[in-house]
Amino acid sequence: MGTAQLTAVPEPKYWHLRTVLLRAIDSEFTTGQVIPNERELSARFGVARATLRQALDQLELEGRLVRRRGIGTLVAAPRVGVPVSRREEGEAWQVVDCATAPASERLAGALGVAPGEAVHTVRRVRVEQGQTVATESLYLAAALLEQVPEIRLSGAPVAEGEELGRAVLRRLERLTVDGESRAVELGVAEAEEAALLQRPPGTPVLVVTTQYAAGGRLAALAVSTYRADTCRLTFGETGLVEVTPVSAVRTAS
Amino acid sequence: MGTAQLTAVPEPKYWHLRTVLLRAIDSEFTTGQVIPNERELSARFGVARATLRQALDQLELEGRLVRRRGIGTLVAAPRVGVPVSRREEGEAWQVVDCATAPASERLAGALGVAPGEAVHTVRRVRVEQGQTVATESLYLAAALLEQVPEIRLSGAPVAEGEELGRAVLRRLERLTVDGESRAVELGVAEAEEAALLQRPPGTPVLVVTTQYAAGGRLAALAVSTYRADTCRLTFGETGLVEVTPVSAVRTAS
Repeated sequence: MGTAQLTAVPEPKYWHLRTVLLRAIDSEFTTGQVIPNERELSARFGVARATLRQALDQLELEGRLVRRRGIGTLVAAPRVGVPVSRREEGEAWQVVDCATAPASERLAGALGVAPGEAVHTVRRVRVEQGQTVATESLYLAAALLEQVPEIRLSGAPVAEGEELGRAVLRRLERLTVDGESRAVELGVAEAEEAALLQRPPGTPVLVVTTQYAAGGRLAALAVSTYRADTCRLTFGETGLVEVTPVSAVRTAS
Repeated sequence: MGTAQLTAVPEPKYWHLRTVLLRAIDSEFTTGQVIPNERELSARFGVARATLRQALDQLELEGRLVRRRGIGTLVAAPRVGVPVSRREEGEAWQVVDCATAPASERLAGALGVAPGEAVHTVRRVRVEQGQTVATESLYLAAALLEQVPEIRLSGAPVAEGEELGRAVLRRLERLTVDGESRAVELGVAEAEEAALLQRPPGTPVLVVTTQYAAGGRLAALAVSTYRADTCRLTFGETGLVEVTPVSAVRTAS
């Protein structure tokens, strides 16, 4: 680390094959088309099945191929551009449930409350074009919400689950949120997130952590996990047309 | 796709091991410490070496472990928060070179110019805490720059490489950029990028595509690739302290 070492690392065999396959996919196949099976491909490119599988795994990770049980390997549709900002997300999120529990030491530290203080956790999923693309846990100190004028819940004296979740979000909207800070990093879907995303545990995800600030302090914290194979997160302010998919540019020069 | 199927996918063996290892790392080791070797670990956890290696690869991908030749496997430092926005990036980028060439059909389409039109490509690297964390290609139509008042280049009649790159960027700064749109997605380092990042080809990267708009049209396009193992991209507007690293929250509840 630190000292420059500009010699190129040698290219692994599977990586070379991945690049060759990518070129073949771009020139010979269209979205949704089934590509030849592993036996045919390893014969065509003269490579071992293990190397081929590694290259196919890689292209699946990159969102270029998708495997369907009983069908085969298909050319994936381009990634979906998913706007990330409170204003743009609109009705994309659906509340799954909400729980209220004492904050663990770590969560308390992150939220800036005392350990053991009651925290609401609202879980939501985001659906785009009929597919669940993200899941989110939003954490909010219960004490903070109590300062917000009550919104009448239709009839129910004690709200639970989905209903409580929606009530918490409605109240969060009434807090004057001054700003949002976000961090994006690579993560992997833990078991529960994976189940909601209908993917195996360990699936790469883009993890977006959002801090909502109100009155100069942290009001709520949301951790959202987006499927990295199918999503492109967009952050816009130009009002221009959609940001060009990277695949169109990176292989362009 | 589309229809909900909420049954959890069974947890692979390596994934279970990864979670067990992560707990052990968090409780028994500190940043920079060398963990036991593969032989010792596979004995301790009673697993095959292949499964262990898969779990270690996974934790390396997640930026929790780092392998050093001749030393062993170390507990990685927390990811570096890297601010992404023109204002905050400051002096973090260093120009590597600049080339001027006719635009390919794809690049022309992305930039909104005619194929074959001259385009400057400025390549930069971003260094944080002594480590190269990102590489970038910034594309800009040569014709657009000619509308900007000339900035005198110190003595050189024809600028090349680094010098031309810096001149192009200085002129870009003089264009009135109305806004920036960004997209973030998961990618993999191609051979050339990998060499600049001192990582093997195929290393996961966060690819940020930035469109710079001026006068209601696209002025420049930048494709930046950040090391996904060591970087957390931050987008801030609250002025609050740094966004909480996700690892502190995701395992908190």
